[in-house]
Amino acid sequence: MGLKFTLKKREKDMNIGNVKIGKDFVIIAGPCAVESIEQLLNTALYVKACGAHLLRAMVFKPRTSPYSFQGLGIDGLKIVEEVREKIGMPVVTEVVDPRDVEQVCEVADVIQLGARNMQNYALLREVGRTSKPVILKRGLSATIEEWLNAAEYILSEGNENVILCERGIRTFITETRFTLDLSSVPILKKLTSLPVIVDPSHAAGASDLVKPLAKASKVVGSDGLIVEVHPDPQHALSDNKQQLNFDMFKQLMLELNELKC
Amino acid sequence: MGLKFTLKKREKDMNIGNVKIGKDFVIIAGPCAVESIEQLLNTALYVKACGAHLLRAMVFKPRTSPYSFQGLGIDGLKIVEEVREKIGMPVVTEVVDPRDVEQVCEVADVIQLGARNMQNYALLREVGRTSKPVILKRGLSATIEEWLNAAEYILSEGNENVILCERGIRTFITETRFTLDLSSVPILKKLTSLPVIVDPSHAAGASDLVKPLAKASKVVGSDGLIVEVHPDPQHALSDNKQQLNFDMFKQLMLELNELKC
Amino acid sequence: MGLKFTLKKREKDMNIGNVKIGKDFVIIAGPCAVESIEQLLNTALYVKACGAHLLRAMVFKPRTSPYSFQGLGIDGLKIVEEVREKIGMPVVTEVVDPRDVEQVCEVADVIQLGARNMQNYALLREVGRTSKPVILKRGLSATIEEWLNAAEYILSEGNENVILCERGIRTFITETRFTLDLSSVPILKKLTSLPVIVDPSHAAGASDLVKPLAKASKVVGSDGLIVEVHPDPQHALSDNKQQLNFDMFKQLMLELNELKC
Amino acid sequence: MGLKFTLKKREKDMNIGNVKIGKDFVIIAGPCAVESIEQLLNTALYVKACGAHLLRAMVFKPRTSPYSFQGLGIDGLKIVEEVREKIGMPVVTEVVDPRDVEQVCEVADVIQLGARNMQNYALLREVGRTSKPVILKRGLSATIEEWLNAAEYILSEGNENVILCERGIRTFITETRFTLDLSSVPILKKLTSLPVIVDPSHAAGASDLVKPLAKASKVVGSDGLIVEVHPDPQHALSDNKQQLNFDMFKQLMLELNELKC
Repeated sequence: MGLKFTLKKREKDMNIGNVKIGKDFVIIAGPCAVESIEQLLNTALYVKACGAHLLRAMVFKPRTSPYSFQGLGIDGLKIVEEVREKIGMPVVTEVVDPRDVEQVCEVADVIQLGARNMQNYALLREVGRTSKPVILKRGLSATIEEWLNAAEYILSEGNENVILCERGIRTFITETRFTLDLSSVPILKKLTSLPVIVDPSHAAGASDLVKPLAKASKVVGSDGLIVEVHPDPQHALSDNKQQLNFDMFKQLMLELNELKC
Repeated sequence: MGLKFTLKKREKDMNIGNVKIGKDFVIIAGPCAVESIEQLLNTALYVKACGAHLLRAMVFKPRTSPYSFQGLGIDGLKIVEEVREKIGMPVVTEVVDPRDVEQVCEVADVIQLGARNMQNYALLREVGRTSKPVILKRGLSATIEEWLNAAEYILSEGNENVILCERGIRTFITETRFTLDLSSVPILKKLTSLPVIVDPSHAAGASDLVKPLAKASKVVGSDGLIVEVHPDPQHALSDNKQQLNFDMFKQLMLELNELKC
Repeated sequence: MGLKFTLKKREKDMNIGNVKIGKDFVIIAGPCAVESIEQLLNTALYVKACGAHLLRAMVFKPRTSPYSFQGLGIDGLKIVEEVREKIGMPVVTEVVDPRDVEQVCEVADVIQLGARNMQNYALLREVGRTSKPVILKRGLSATIEEWLNAAEYILSEGNENVILCERGIRTFITETRFTLDLSSVPILKKLTSLPVIVDPSHAAGASDLVKPLAKASKVVGSDGLIVEVHPDPQHALSDNKQQLNFDMFKQLMLELNELKC
Repeated sequence: MGLKFTLKKREKDMNIGNVKIGKDFVIIAGPCAVESIEQLLNTALYVKACGAHLLRAMVFKPRTSPYSFQGLGIDGLKIVEEVREKIGMPVVTEVVDPRDVEQVCEVADVIQLGARNMQNYALLREVGRTSKPVILKRGLSATIEEWLNAAEYILSEGNENVILCERGIRTFITETRFTLDLSSVPILKKLTSLPVIVDPSHAAGASDLVKPLAKASKVVGSDGLIVEVHPDPQHALSDNKQQLNFDMFKQLMLELNELKC
């Protein structure tokens, strides 16, 4: 495969806030997109109280249509910064343009690269030149080998902190948005010492499937989850079918904690 | 969808031996194929001792190539009958030809229809005219709607005892034999009151992936598992990469029992 | 691959009526399903006048739902026999149950095995014991290797007359029913000396796509086409979106004849 | 679908050099990657003599692995410029980073956006702010709707000159690199007035499949082809299995010209 870094044993720990990535089971939760200071702050307070470690706080949204809500952009970053400081919770935010990487890094604790950008090599390299932990989502039609090669782009630039995120692949299935490939988790855990988390929200595309898939993700040996939570999913500006409301998230956290595996 | 029976609430229980299908978490275990009386008997004794409820005992093997081992056929049925009587364990066996259904029903407690026969309508109808419980495996490229329609072929002939079995779908993935679609389990449990079990062995195609996928199958709400177990997988006449050896199966059963979800 | 017969050079010609399969560009046309003597006779007269060599005349229809029209069955066979004799045109008809093979062979000049039965090994073997030419459609998720292995089941029983039929594979695409994989034609023509035809009707699922895909099928080197034609597609009992009406078929034949490649 | 521009009727012509895109059948040919001035110049002279209209001349190569040849980059652009001027042939070159768009536009007559960047929205927007014709390749797992939405990103920024390029989708097939979806051509030609070309080289991944697929692409109604041609494919620095040598390209052009459809 010609993989120089992803197959190497990691020496250093990857700690973000109080959580040891790859050792603790990390919970990243928050809205699909930042919509307002109230929305983000309320969600952050709630998910933190339930035990989430990191706040999902996206301001650049790669959307299929240019006419859909694209996120609040740079203005949104200020909201993220304010909430982050107010409640002392580390934040994950997505970057979609190599020209924004520097500015995003001033706020973000963790950078996310989305599925549609898994092979956006200019962006991968730019992020590889920072030292921020990077969540690298699996591309919609990426094999495990292609995914690890994408991680190599980041690692070979000097950034050792890549976290792989399974989020479902495109198949002929129409009952879910994507097909969550949970076998990728034990395969990756065997191949590489990079942490592997799962995004059950995007895979399912339906909030009632998030809990069983999240629990299954823990059981197959993943290192954590990234879950969409919104105070009022029905009125969300994006992904309104798959975001959990507060009660659903609380219930998910309860059941995850009880799950001994 | 025009589904008359699969969406109806089941009234009756489906009991096989001591296990209540759809209530207890049923474990079906045994070799990919019956190879000899010793092989089947030893496996049966072992898996029963570990807590398996039903014995997997296949004598008609649908193989990709006509030159691969095709199973022991009718001679194998006698072995199955002997082992079944000797240790009093109900057996699951596959049928692939409508002309064999009657004879197979004399021995089998449960009939299996394989993935490649999910839309073999002559066979579905013939099995529908019996009263035996039927495990209907999902076709390699079947949507949930097509799968339920296949179940309708059996149910509409009068046989109420259909058990659906998720076993992975064909995708672009090459790292596993198929991609296990665990979201199908909660979707089906919501749509239908038919029991839903999972076959992690065929989906994975690799014995070391069976345990995590089996545990995930329990956690997403399935009603049981069908798992391949062989006394000496390396020398098995078929599926030698994915069958568990005795120790692996014992460990799987231990972890499944400890898994509270 | 362990392919004993499909990779061997064919010695004998395969002639059906006046057409040399594998040399002439064979056109098989007719309705999705036989509905009545008038419908079949009118269609047969029309497609013959346009230059079709064989009549498509299906009486056993494998349908996704048991509540859809299943074909006229044995009664339909009598209609096929009558039309065949009346106009002296060889007929292709599908068989779905091994118990029907003998009876179907009394009428059919060519037997078809559908995509959903490509790995129905009992049926393949039964058909392999006859000497009738067999159109073996590609399974919905079959690789070329699996497809050739299915042909081996027929050939290894002694029937040398297998015609492979590309009819589209299942992919994530929703704009067409299936995705026609035209690269399979030159690949197969290089690997095997079995004739290869194409079914553009089922792949497309839309009548206006049939003509371009049919022409492309000729250009990539296929040995012929099987096309659905109905006197009144809108009122057809099955596949009403993809059947050509008479004018569309005439136009297709004109353009195919003009296509020098 | 919310498609504002792609479904609108185009008013203006799109002329590049002497060729009217969308009216003439445009042939774009050249190496996978620019390797040297000799290689590009020789190829350009040859393909021009055979009748190609535009020169394929890529200097930024998005490669799966960071350790594969990445193209000559900015240095390569100078080679492209020199060859372009020397023989007066318009050039197509790929851009992969929004920061390079301005510089690339100084040389390129047509910009290409590759399959892996189909949903790289920062890049789409940047290219949309130029007036250069843009070849937008279909993403590996893109539906037609997603592809048209990607085109909307370019069109909505003011650039009207989008050319869609079918290049195969990812499926379970392993015999070819991708599965060329030729039905997309007539579907797009009906939906939109944007020109639609086909890349048979990347779809096939094998040089002997390029000719039949290229001819099929013409027959289904596409507006042209982009084909990889290299003076010595075996020693090419990338895609060495699928590039045509000079003789193969000459033969392809001959057969394309003879193909009346």
